[in-house]
Amino acid sequence: MKRRDFLGAAAGAIALPALATTTNASAARASDRIEWRMATSWPKGAPGVGVNAQRLADRIGAMSGGRLTVKLYGAGEIVPPFEVFDAVSQGVCEMGHGTPYYWQGKNPAFHYFTGVPFGLTAPETAGWLAYGGGQALWEEAYAPFGVLPFYAGSSGVQAGGWFNREIRTLDDLKGLSFRIAGLGGEVMRRLGVSVVLTPPGEIFTSMKSGAIDAAEWVGPWNDTAFGLDKVARYYYLPAFHEAGPSLELLVSQEKFKALPADLQEIVKGAALATAAETLADFTFHNIEAFAHLVAAGGTELRDWPEPVAAAMAKASNEVLAELAATS
Amino acid sequence: MKRRDFLGAAAGAIALPALATTTNASAARASDRIEWRMATSWPKGAPGVGVNAQRLADRIGAMSGGRLTVKLYGAGEIVPPFEVFDAVSQGVCEMGHGTPYYWQGKNPAFHYFTGVPFGLTAPETAGWLAYGGGQALWEEAYAPFGVLPFYAGSSGVQAGGWFNREIRTLDDLKGLSFRIAGLGGEVMRRLGVSVVLTPPGEIFTSMKSGAIDAAEWVGPWNDTAFGLDKVARYYYLPAFHEAGPSLELLVSQEKFKALPADLQEIVKGAALATAAETLADFTFHNIEAFAHLVAAGGTELRDWPEPVAAAMAKASNEVLAELAATS
Repeated sequence: MKRRDFLGAAAGAIALPALATTTNASAARASDRIEWRMATSWPKGAPGVGVNAQRLADRIGAMSGGRLTVKLYGAGEIVPPFEVFDAVSQGVCEMGHGTPYYWQGKNPAFHYFTGVPFGLTAPETAGWLAYGGGQALWEEAYAPFGVLPFYAGSSGVQAGGWFNREIRTLDDLKGLSFRIAGLGGEVMRRLGVSVVLTPPGEIFTSMKSGAIDAAEWVGPWNDTAFGLDKVARYYYLPAFHEAGPSLELLVSQEKFKALPADLQEIVKGAALATAAETLADFTFHNIEAFAHLVAAGGTELRDWPEPVAAAMAKASNEVLAELAATS
Repeated sequence: MKRRDFLGAAAGAIALPALATTTNASAARASDRIEWRMATSWPKGAPGVGVNAQRLADRIGAMSGGRLTVKLYGAGEIVPPFEVFDAVSQGVCEMGHGTPYYWQGKNPAFHYFTGVPFGLTAPETAGWLAYGGGQALWEEAYAPFGVLPFYAGSSGVQAGGWFNREIRTLDDLKGLSFRIAGLGGEVMRRLGVSVVLTPPGEIFTSMKSGAIDAAEWVGPWNDTAFGLDKVARYYYLPAFHEAGPSLELLVSQEKFKALPADLQEIVKGAALATAAETLADFTFHNIEAFAHLVAAGGTELRDWPEPVAAAMAKASNEVLAELAATS
């Protein structure tokens, strides 16, 4: 996921079947019901992210027998996509769904919880959070804002990007106009790339018109949905800059504390269940899309050449050392 | 996990803190309470598997506010480890925790749900089950036995095994006495290996005495806990035969259908949450153990040599073709 990437991506929206409502004896009495709102950074129903945020909201309602229902709002419906964290922090809504580096302006340390160049894969990130002390650091970083973070999965290993020419040496990167977001963009800038932040809805047309030479977006599933295979010949994999970016469930600390213990467990369990489901969703659909891409022909699949990968690693270490010095 | 691997592994047992009981208004009324029993194939508290089975049982109780509590029984406490499936099928208990290939005698197709040589990784398996039709096939395979399967995570990519000498060519495998389980054992047998099924509790002493030349167990975490690094010099990674073996929650179909809808959702959600947690647990602790192993020195880390890997792949294809012809 990239900053501002899902703005305007409503073309990918899909309908979700409503979950069956519980009509049995364990259903909530009206007096017990709590209704929460979840702001998200994604258009409603956006593949991978919007769909899994909706599954998370629905699962809380279903597991609680309607005692805690969560109504999901797409990007811009309550607040703009990059104000979801603020909305939860300020009590505009009780929950949010996004990715930590969207709020990096609050504290550059937030990058660590989405992921950093040459960083952890999705299972490694989940392992670090749960067993390596990561969750405690995350809660400490968010505590001043009154927000509780829960890991809610990942898009898995992303793709490096689409290029209209082959990259054989570092010289081929010089002056290249490349749409790439986050710390990965900063790394590429240091290698002489002209980094641009084309909004997602414009990547296809910018590549087609020649306004940009290269663009990274997510992975085969989302990239081919955008038609990027139709406007560039060379596909570099994997992403050096996003090995397993995290999605997160944000919950108002105050509202969470006020929940009965079983509903707290349901919120935590639903986030964790969605983490498994989200990675499975991206993994399956990326493989399926990749197979279609290979079968279609016309795309040249490439690893990063060794000297280019080494230079990216060196620049990544510099960027991370500077980040570590600030936070 | 290997067939019979956790028998007698109680030395690894660890204590789990009890989850706080809910004492609020949403706690279950006594008349609403359902108590289930979960038989497992693991000693209680066995790292990775026993611990995560316990987390799954506890999570159901915590999320349901005590309306559905699950009491876990370790291997042999209700039934022997390889009779867990039968116990659920025959109504001896309502739930079980194991891995599908433990019950391969019922139907060789069960292998596909644990994993096959050169098969899917854990996220790929989860993707196939949820989005590629795998779950429907799994339910179809278990339906004649009245058992419902839910994916409950994986031990991740396993290790290939410990060898007391280097493997450079296929000839080095001939006549080698190798402790290896499942379809991987059948593959090695076709390459001239003398396959043995040393029980887990005897692997260390069998390697030390020279009764066997090589042994695979799980991965760095569990292997070093068994002291295998003390009795063999060469460690081959990764396992060709277990890229992401599945753990499963088994539920009596009849008992599941009788649950109210919200408790059904809690059982499903708890299994999925445990899937995320289990893979994170194995991933984190394998990396940690691997780092210790490298730091300790004395272990020679090896990839499989290319001609050996190619021969293993060819034999795996033959074994799988024969399996596919039977089921």
